Amino acid sequence: MIAPRNTPAPTRPRAEVDEIAAVVDAVRVAAPLTQCLTNSVVTGFTANVLLAVGASPAMVDSLEEGPIFADIADGLLINVGTVNAMTVDSMLATAAAREDAGRTWCLDPVAVGALPVRTALARDLLEHRPSVVRGNASEVLGLVGETGAGRGVDAGDDVDSALDVAAALAARTGGAVAVSGEVDAVVATDTPTLRIANGHPIMTKVTGVGCALGAMVAAYLPVARTPHLAAAAATAALTVAADDAAYRASGPGSFAVELLDALARVDAEAVAANLDLR
Amino acid sequence: MIAPRNTPAPTRPRAEVDEIAAVVDAVRVAAPLTQCLTNSVVTGFTANVLLAVGASPAMVDSLEEGPIFADIADGLLINVGTVNAMTVDSMLATAAAREDAGRTWCLDPVAVGALPVRTALARDLLEHRPSVVRGNASEVLGLVGETGAGRGVDAGDDVDSALDVAAALAARTGGAVAVSGEVDAVVATDTPTLRIANGHPIMTKVTGVGCALGAMVAAYLPVARTPHLAAAAATAALTVAADDAAYRASGPGSFAVELLDALARVDAEAVAANLDLR
Amino acid sequence: MIAPRNTPAPTRPRAEVDEIAAVVDAVRVAAPLTQCLTNSVVTGFTANVLLAVGASPAMVDSLEEGPIFADIADGLLINVGTVNAMTVDSMLATAAAREDAGRTWCLDPVAVGALPVRTALARDLLEHRPSVVRGNASEVLGLVGETGAGRGVDAGDDVDSALDVAAALAARTGGAVAVSGEVDAVVATDTPTLRIANGHPIMTKVTGVGCALGAMVAAYLPVARTPHLAAAAATAALTVAADDAAYRASGPGSFAVELLDALARVDAEAVAANLDLR
Repeated sequence: MIAPRNTPAPTRPRAEVDEIAAVVDAVRVAAPLTQCLTNSVVTGFTANVLLAVGASPAMVDSLEEGPIFADIADGLLINVGTVNAMTVDSMLATAAAREDAGRTWCLDPVAVGALPVRTALARDLLEHRPSVVRGNASEVLGLVGETGAGRGVDAGDDVDSALDVAAALAARTGGAVAVSGEVDAVVATDTPTLRIANGHPIMTKVTGVGCALGAMVAAYLPVARTPHLAAAAATAALTVAADDAAYRASGPGSFAVELLDALARVDAEAVAANLDLR
Repeated sequence: MIAPRNTPAPTRPRAEVDEIAAVVDAVRVAAPLTQCLTNSVVTGFTANVLLAVGASPAMVDSLEEGPIFADIADGLLINVGTVNAMTVDSMLATAAAREDAGRTWCLDPVAVGALPVRTALARDLLEHRPSVVRGNASEVLGLVGETGAGRGVDAGDDVDSALDVAAALAARTGGAVAVSGEVDAVVATDTPTLRIANGHPIMTKVTGVGCALGAMVAAYLPVARTPHLAAAAATAALTVAADDAAYRASGPGSFAVELLDALARVDAEAVAANLDLR
Repeated sequence: MIAPRNTPAPTRPRAEVDEIAAVVDAVRVAAPLTQCLTNSVVTGFTANVLLAVGASPAMVDSLEEGPIFADIADGLLINVGTVNAMTVDSMLATAAAREDAGRTWCLDPVAVGALPVRTALARDLLEHRPSVVRGNASEVLGLVGETGAGRGVDAGDDVDSALDVAAALAARTGGAVAVSGEVDAVVATDTPTLRIANGHPIMTKVTGVGCALGAMVAAYLPVARTPHLAAAAATAALTVAADDAAYRASGPGSFAVELLDALARVDAEAVAANLDLR
């Protein structure tokens, strides 16, 4: 793991950085079985990201098996990127089963706000209290009915514009909200908002990098002390690995390959040394 | 962008080459939001190709959201590679919405002719007047009921054998028909047939390269002056990039990676310098 | 093709090794059209593996087209990795059509035993007499109702613990059973059990490597003299290629790329020189 291109200038206490970094190693030890109900574009890449960070992916997403597996899996991701009538039922039943079991899960509201079916679905899913909501600023705004500037998966809004709404969302779910952007933010009720300034623009040129972060949050949740810490650690591991991968890559194709290799290498030491936490 | 292995010997006017090449840069400026209803094998690769060439992919493909998004998206691809009862309805409704809006779209009739459900579907879709039909010779023949030699996605027929049928199709839709093969051809009613001799056999050893061309055509349509020009520019960008990628690759795995890197680099200058237009 | 890291110590007759190796070249000559009804995570990777080994993939998986195509395709894979109500019907109808036609097919019982819908489905599919069943030890045990230690796709049991059950399964289907693990085993009724000790732990860090083996078995079946030989040759080609790829790779991302390149190179000579058959 080489030095990233943007040299970190930590402005947060060292203990905070170290606690975040420690989660990255703990996930490799625990190897959490992580169930994903995700969109059809990113299933393979998501599974490979989870394997690289030490989790065990399981794309059990049907109405018939999803809710049952939600009782078995350590982690759960629900990502509404390509919903239809069939997947809506499966996602709602699985989230309900998960809430009943009192266990963590992560909601990724892809393109919510811009499209009606997924927007209604994501709001219904919110009632099942996701531990972490992870999205870009437009998606976070769309989730609560603010009219953002997003079209499809592109954020038309910046991270800071969504922080108040993110805080309100966190108060409502009792969990954390991770807002992705040029500088990522993680918001929760009883904790200062964290900002992570690692990462590289080429991350937006590979499909599923944001979705992979949602899956990583789902895998980190059963291992981390709080949802806030899980979201921060997953964001840290992904963006520190991305800095390294971007340095080695010649374009988006090789970046995706290098990112998986870097995610398989990234550990507490690399995160502690390179995290630009603000 | 290095010189391709087959040195071009342009036999068409320089202005024609330059007009095609200019579209490649224009797409990067416009960043067209490109909706894809495509097959389950190639969703991720298609999205990555669109990102690499400067478009913004959105795989909004359900019956509930597809037709609505067809009004928002700049470009639209419908690819019948893995259809079932649910996707048939979604594709027909989305194509109808697109035609009503008077906007461009690209039809990719994967394996049409060889299989009944998709053949009937593709013929129904044809009624909604796709701006470009893109397929191999067997698929183009299958679309109008000619019995070709194709089995599945493999062309059993050569490009020249499909040119008359392609011209008849173009007359019927008022758009263009792009026939993929060893030398690609682009056919339209009021324009001479173009042939593009770039490209490499290894393109047939990676799944979804043909499907990616269909998606690129969909993204180039809202930017180019005519469907014929969109199809020619997309074919040019893909095959010039493929020449470069094939030169760098050690096999089909590394070719797919190099192709995405090359597509992210390819521009008007590279196309103008390397296009073998006949 | 360089020497693998685990130098082979063949303990089986040279003629046996050579017969297995010869199938790898024969598949490239025959280019079998291979139909896959597989899970949504691995469709693209599976198609790329089939192309690399010289087969022609066709993911024709709907209820409407699957059974028809089963009469056309040379090979057939049914993998139950992400089943739902719709795919259950399609898989059963396609397997029935294949059995009626008296042709070979491969069943991959992903995560069977751990989840109810796929377990019932896989047992129903077994009635249609798959030529080869390919799974890990937990999946093979789960198929016949033994309570294994598997959770999701991870094997909790070792290969030897499943050999008696595999032999009983082979007797029931009249075909072969391939049990994947650290050392793979291929079991059939009238043939000694073969063990193949090639391969590398990083194969478990890329999603779909096991599923790709199932697809390779499906492609090798119409070419090989017996199901046992098809399973052995597919396992040999994959694991010899994986040894080479693991040597070249820097992590799971580059391993997946190198594996496709190595599969495109692997031939009878490389298998004969490197196979660790026991």
